[in-house]
Amino acid sequence: MVMVSRWEPNARERLVEAALALYVEHGFEQTTVVEIAKRAGLTERTFFRYFSDKREVLFSGAESLEELLVEALRTVPDSVAPIDAVARALNTSARIFEERRDFAIRRQSVIAANRELQERELIKLASLSSALAKGLRARGTSERAADLVAHAGIAVFKIAFERWITSGGTDDLAHLFDEYFAELKVVTDEGG
Amino acid sequence: MVMVSRWEPNARERLVEAALALYVEHGFEQTTVVEIAKRAGLTERTFFRYFSDKREVLFSGAESLEELLVEALRTVPDSVAPIDAVARALNTSARIFEERRDFAIRRQSVIAANRELQERELIKLASLSSALAKGLRARGTSERAADLVAHAGIAVFKIAFERWITSGGTDDLAHLFDEYFAELKVVTDEGG
Repeated sequence: MVMVSRWEPNARERLVEAALALYVEHGFEQTTVVEIAKRAGLTERTFFRYFSDKREVLFSGAESLEELLVEALRTVPDSVAPIDAVARALNTSARIFEERRDFAIRRQSVIAANRELQERELIKLASLSSALAKGLRARGTSERAADLVAHAGIAVFKIAFERWITSGGTDDLAHLFDEYFAELKVVTDEGG
Repeated sequence: MVMVSRWEPNARERLVEAALALYVEHGFEQTTVVEIAKRAGLTERTFFRYFSDKREVLFSGAESLEELLVEALRTVPDSVAPIDAVARALNTSARIFEERRDFAIRRQSVIAANRELQERELIKLASLSSALAKGLRARGTSERAADLVAHAGIAVFKIAFERWITSGGTDDLAHLFDEYFAELKVVTDEGG
């Protein structure tokens, strides 16, 4: 059976906006898909055309981010050191986050309030780290170095990103990434 | 009401052993507390005297590990650079893992087979990282440096530990920690 459905302009954006507003107002747990659809002026069926569940609204971007970073890493010349290659790849994401500043800040506040979402976020970061390590190995980096650089890169990403959120998105994210990568070199170099 | 219960020798160890054996044989999901208690020759009530649920059997050690590492960090002289202080703290855990090699290896295989347990493991590592960062700040390290060093240290811990598990616990864990910390310095130093 072919179902003909009315085309809804910006349905996805409206659903994301409605979901985030409700998560912030009432909490993630308390919000239902029915409420999200209603607030967006859309049907539940339309919601499920875009998202598998209400958590997906918060995490659908993680997959695109991973693809973006892996692709960015691929374009860095092999002569660039692994740590700098990862830094360059992460920097390509800064502009995208800056463009979605309000979404990023509200998303983070919802996640910070819910343990299950924090776990999901850690899983996504671990997946990102694995993807970067794989990309580094494809450039000829040893497994051990690839794992270390990918993990360190994701640590920089996470800490700088949290700093950016704390600043209300007013700091320059790309600059924060650079600053934290520079600091990582300093602190790992201090030892004996 | 005071309940008098028969003292069961090595009840905790027997429960851990029974649980791990069942998790490895039948999978974590498929195993019930009733089965664990039965295999250990103990009652369900005895199980709950030691563990809040069947997941706790795998993660009760994480809290002691955190205390151990924080305490170890406290004893490192302030003159030692943060990255080396974390390396020393982590090294104190090596002997404990070596002594529980069989447990560690089987535990890891159970976790590797279950997504929910992997999420829990990531949460525990994140908590460990926060505890180390807090310990570093108490030594006077700046917040940014403390976060970076703690995250990098936990990355080294995780990757070296996985390497140790892969070796079947035959490699020397303390040596692996040293080796991976040294490699971290090399890879973060390579960049421009």
